[in-house]
Amino acid sequence: MIQVKDNTSKFNDDQILISHGDGGAKTGELIKNLIFNFLGNSILEKMEDSAVLKINSDKIAFTTDSFVVKPIFFSGGDIGKLSICGTLNDISCSGAKPLYLSLSFIIEEGFQTKELAKILKSMKSVLDEVSVPVVTGDTKVVEKNNIDKIFINTSGVGAVPPGLEISPLNIKPKDKIIINGSIADHGISVLTSRENFGFKGIKSDCAPLSIMIEEVLKTGSGIHAIRDATRGGLASVLNEFSEISNYQFKIYEELIPVNKKVYAICEFLGLDPLYIANEGKMVLFVDPKDANQVLATLKNNRYGRNSVIIGEVENTRDSVVIMKTKIGTNRIIDRFYSEQLPRIC
Amino acid sequence: MIQVKDNTSKFNDDQILISHGDGGAKTGELIKNLIFNFLGNSILEKMEDSAVLKINSDKIAFTTDSFVVKPIFFSGGDIGKLSICGTLNDISCSGAKPLYLSLSFIIEEGFQTKELAKILKSMKSVLDEVSVPVVTGDTKVVEKNNIDKIFINTSGVGAVPPGLEISPLNIKPKDKIIINGSIADHGISVLTSRENFGFKGIKSDCAPLSIMIEEVLKTGSGIHAIRDATRGGLASVLNEFSEISNYQFKIYEELIPVNKKVYAICEFLGLDPLYIANEGKMVLFVDPKDANQVLATLKNNRYGRNSVIIGEVENTRDSVVIMKTKIGTNRIIDRFYSEQLPRIC
Repeated sequence: MIQVKDNTSKFNDDQILISHGDGGAKTGELIKNLIFNFLGNSILEKMEDSAVLKINSDKIAFTTDSFVVKPIFFSGGDIGKLSICGTLNDISCSGAKPLYLSLSFIIEEGFQTKELAKILKSMKSVLDEVSVPVVTGDTKVVEKNNIDKIFINTSGVGAVPPGLEISPLNIKPKDKIIINGSIADHGISVLTSRENFGFKGIKSDCAPLSIMIEEVLKTGSGIHAIRDATRGGLASVLNEFSEISNYQFKIYEELIPVNKKVYAICEFLGLDPLYIANEGKMVLFVDPKDANQVLATLKNNRYGRNSVIIGEVENTRDSVVIMKTKIGTNRIIDRFYSEQLPRIC
Repeated sequence: MIQVKDNTSKFNDDQILISHGDGGAKTGELIKNLIFNFLGNSILEKMEDSAVLKINSDKIAFTTDSFVVKPIFFSGGDIGKLSICGTLNDISCSGAKPLYLSLSFIIEEGFQTKELAKILKSMKSVLDEVSVPVVTGDTKVVEKNNIDKIFINTSGVGAVPPGLEISPLNIKPKDKIIINGSIADHGISVLTSRENFGFKGIKSDCAPLSIMIEEVLKTGSGIHAIRDATRGGLASVLNEFSEISNYQFKIYEELIPVNKKVYAICEFLGLDPLYIANEGKMVLFVDPKDANQVLATLKNNRYGRNSVIIGEVENTRDSVVIMKTKIGTNRIIDRFYSEQLPRIC
């Protein structure tokens, strides 16, 4: 037995729980109180979706994600499309241009070749759209019942344009908060594809945002921060950015786009769409003088048609997100404690 | 149902089998006849362990590997040490200096925190030794029985020194073939850790070779190609390099180091050590005028003490590896058909 130093004293759980992997508070505990005790360093501890790194004279973005979504095929996408979009979006939200992806499959013995081909086809379709190649890969197969069908890891490398710095640290009072369309579509699509609720027709928003981000970055220097609103939904990104920037944010419920059907399902199940995962939505923090041009540029792209300003940064030093509700009250949008739907990515 | 084009006609298996992930002939079929149909491009199709890529003025190496070894703790290492060493070695064998790693966990619900801490500790120990940081990560947890304990993906980025080109395409007649010590230790360690054979004391050779490779590259330009001999063992690397370089190789059985105990277990089980996985062994192809200096440099490093010349490249255009046996006959060392031991990495 290897003796482990008592660095784990702040991590109080004897066992790893589902919530340690849902991107919420328990995941934060696992990462900060256990993983960082061993592997912590100034870059990793920034906890950005992409690490921004120096290689000689160049600045690169580097990111990784493993995908375990269940079911692997859902309305509007599948684990293949998801794994490519997720990694592309993480690179792009750091301001970098995605250049190269890696792809690693872990497959269950007996998995149908036909299904693998469908997954590969949908990966190819996204890769062709953004012109980014998979350049290195790995394939492992494990015995039946040792894995649930197929897990996919994609890592990626991008180039950060010289002089560009997109970071929640750059958020300023009066910045407009923009989202590129309706929230909660991905989570609800996966949920309804999983269970036979009788709800149909909810399509995941899973999409590669890279080209749209490139377009919008060309509009000038007014874009201070971008983040895709995946696990934990819109509420989690806003909370994280409010915490990092130490400014209070105000958003308006009536401005936040939610598809009618998605809203109805959330009402019915008691889910809050603000906390439901997206896979093709990002939040942008933009200088007010540039907000309209940014909005116009987003609306010009197929993934940004329904872009809208949903709120702004207030001139108050505080880590809090406040939503003005439709009935006129102010609601504090808490950091979520635990993901409502497991295995949505 | 998404209709898939009939690009899969050359891939004849309806289901994914264990052998499609063992690094042998069936894995080659899956990659070339199915995956490349969708994702193929000139870089990926080189099938190098690391892709060598351009980012502006810099050349980087980029690699990925998922680790599913069973058991996760074995004599001489664990899945944590393995996942760091494997990716470091893949980067270094391309001639690059490893700079940054990513780390992605997929963990089974209920996994013991104590065991995760042991894994993290052994990762830290290797990372400290080579001074390479983990800069980005991801953690997913899946329900009990949906995965066998823990799978780890590590990807990595390295910088290729300007002007350096290490490639099997550079192999030349009369090159000396060098290995840095005994073969088959890793595979036999995992096997004997898994089953209760009564054989004990076989330690995996799992080790980070990065610093030793840096040292040896400083000796000059005589190093033509390097590859770590992992899945498929020494025989597979030699076959692959003979195929790429289109030169015949000759090796000498009496020169190939095999630990006595490992040899005995292989004899007993009918396993051929030439085809058993290593995780701390690499093969170098070196200009004969530089071979002695390279050997001396290797022997100076703790992971190269038992380095030895095991053969040479012949002046014959042919993709074949011939071993002169201890009894004086010539044996053709075939490309192996299928890994003898599954889940060794």
